Amino acid sequence: MPRIAVDAMGGDLAPDEIVRGVAQASLESDIQMVLVGASDRIQALLDAGPYNPELISVRHCSAAIGMAEDPHEGLRTKKDASISVAARMVAAGEADAMVTAGNTGAAVLAAAKNFKLIRGVKKAALASVFPRQTEYPGQDALGLLLDVGATIRCDAIELTQFAVMGSAYARRVSKVARPRVGLLNMGSEESKGGDVLVEAYKRMKAPPQLDFVGNVEGNDVTTGKADVIVAEGLLGNVVLKLIEGIGEVATTVATHAAQDSWRWRIGMAMLSTGISRIRDLADFRSYGGAPILGFESICIKAHGRSTAPAVKNAIKVAAKAVRDRISPEIAEAIAEIR
Amino acid sequence: MPRIAVDAMGGDLAPDEIVRGVAQASLESDIQMVLVGASDRIQALLDAGPYNPELISVRHCSAAIGMAEDPHEGLRTKKDASISVAARMVAAGEADAMVTAGNTGAAVLAAAKNFKLIRGVKKAALASVFPRQTEYPGQDALGLLLDVGATIRCDAIELTQFAVMGSAYARRVSKVARPRVGLLNMGSEESKGGDVLVEAYKRMKAPPQLDFVGNVEGNDVTTGKADVIVAEGLLGNVVLKLIEGIGEVATTVATHAAQDSWRWRIGMAMLSTGISRIRDLADFRSYGGAPILGFESICIKAHGRSTAPAVKNAIKVAAKAVRDRISPEIAEAIAEIR
Repeated sequence: MPRIAVDAMGGDLAPDEIVRGVAQASLESDIQMVLVGASDRIQALLDAGPYNPELISVRHCSAAIGMAEDPHEGLRTKKDASISVAARMVAAGEADAMVTAGNTGAAVLAAAKNFKLIRGVKKAALASVFPRQTEYPGQDALGLLLDVGATIRCDAIELTQFAVMGSAYARRVSKVARPRVGLLNMGSEESKGGDVLVEAYKRMKAPPQLDFVGNVEGNDVTTGKADVIVAEGLLGNVVLKLIEGIGEVATTVATHAAQDSWRWRIGMAMLSTGISRIRDLADFRSYGGAPILGFESICIKAHGRSTAPAVKNAIKVAAKAVRDRISPEIAEAIAEIR
Repeated sequence: MPRIAVDAMGGDLAPDEIVRGVAQASLESDIQMVLVGASDRIQALLDAGPYNPELISVRHCSAAIGMAEDPHEGLRTKKDASISVAARMVAAGEADAMVTAGNTGAAVLAAAKNFKLIRGVKKAALASVFPRQTEYPGQDALGLLLDVGATIRCDAIELTQFAVMGSAYARRVSKVARPRVGLLNMGSEESKGGDVLVEAYKRMKAPPQLDFVGNVEGNDVTTGKADVIVAEGLLGNVVLKLIEGIGEVATTVATHAAQDSWRWRIGMAMLSTGISRIRDLADFRSYGGAPILGFESICIKAHGRSTAPAVKNAIKVAAKAVRDRISPEIAEAIAEIR
């Protein structure tokens, strides 16, 4: 039974939705969970609804890092912050993985401070799922993009390692048997994108374990051309946030059009079920959170706005990552390309 | 009266839609146009519909560069390619600006080979409009993003020059009196994005002519936070193509949802007028094309799939850029920040 340390104090809706998510997970699974944070508040929230006390324990700590707080400063001054305590529990073997919906920078830093990089890995990467079209039946409706913000700029070796790590993760967690890996670039030809991307292309072609489909362009991101898309953190971060942002624009355009057309208004009313399904799809982060890959231990970063179901999903993904031995699998894959 | 050299052979629908666009422009404006390409074919297309012969002339040339052709190779081996001939006409003073819907790389290279960089400008940039929300009444429904592919990586001075050039262009052509300029980055804080972006932020804060609003993140791109968004070519290119690509995904999601809901089907039928309006907005490239900024002469790159109305719009934008003396204005603005 995997043991997951859950940062109860991180997230826009913490601790309420975090604790509710843990309570729900305790009724649907056999995952052992430790809620890390203000114990009185956590216990009060637990007592407000049903949960399985055999699967949940609480580790008290007094501090928390805010969503807008500087992560370096926060981690330096608040030794007892819930996100740090959760990471230290994993490092000490008291838990097998951690989940947080808190400050992304603090999550990456807490992992970097407390977890060991897998042997040979140069940099860890934050990977996120995103919604896209599919090209064949059975293909996952979500793609995986990395890095989305643990790094800024990367060299060719780092990008190739991201390809290997993302491929290993997708193979296990997304159940894509042979994930197609693409390199995000400004053109499809091997010669595009400057020295680093040209060298990364060459390196990604080599390993037989990688199903490298070549460069993917901006308009390929939301097709099924690649299951795993590799980019340096600056580029991946902008792309991920743009995908999130565009969902909101679509809604606004529809609202504007509604203002001067009775047919549009009636049409929108007819569509209400469908519209909410699209909104669900757009809310893709609730599908389990973003893993930080490259460390010996797994940290799953759930979206800052996570509600209880999203927290529950993130915990299940963390448990699955432990059960499926994602980190040892990544270590093997990295060793093969050295 | 501005004289515009139009590459008749460049574009997915060339020469038919290019010639038709020129014919339409000749009936609606006083712009002098030279169609550059296979004269027999051009004349036959002109004769098929109404046009004003006083405004249109034809410059014959025998070659053309294909949309998928390597631009370096194409320009080297085909001295008589329509895109090169058009650029040489502008350089020789036989035309004031050029328009092409052809190979983007070839357009940038032909400009670089034949036009002079404005004094002080380190690199030219390709700028594209894109659809976004507005924050206040009167704000342009389109933003301007540069560079979208003339460069790959850029230093802080180059990015600052892009800010100045984009601001000058938006002020004139988009009639935004004081365009808000944003730096595309992975976080809103001044400290984000690594050395180059941190230095670019500092430099962009300084010039009083720039209304610099700071860093914009991926989810800010499609809001009205900035009217001009600055990025190195690799990042800008991926962002622009992603925006284009997502329009197609939205259509597909709607189609999928339609398959199992009669209400959705009826709703979509009710919405047909509104849907086509959204499609028009999504087809934003028809709103005038992308200028290559930084040279003493202007080249407007229309979208490869341009139909006659898009070609006509690009010609009007080119003429306006000449009338409004965009390049001298950019030269002045660049001189001010040196």
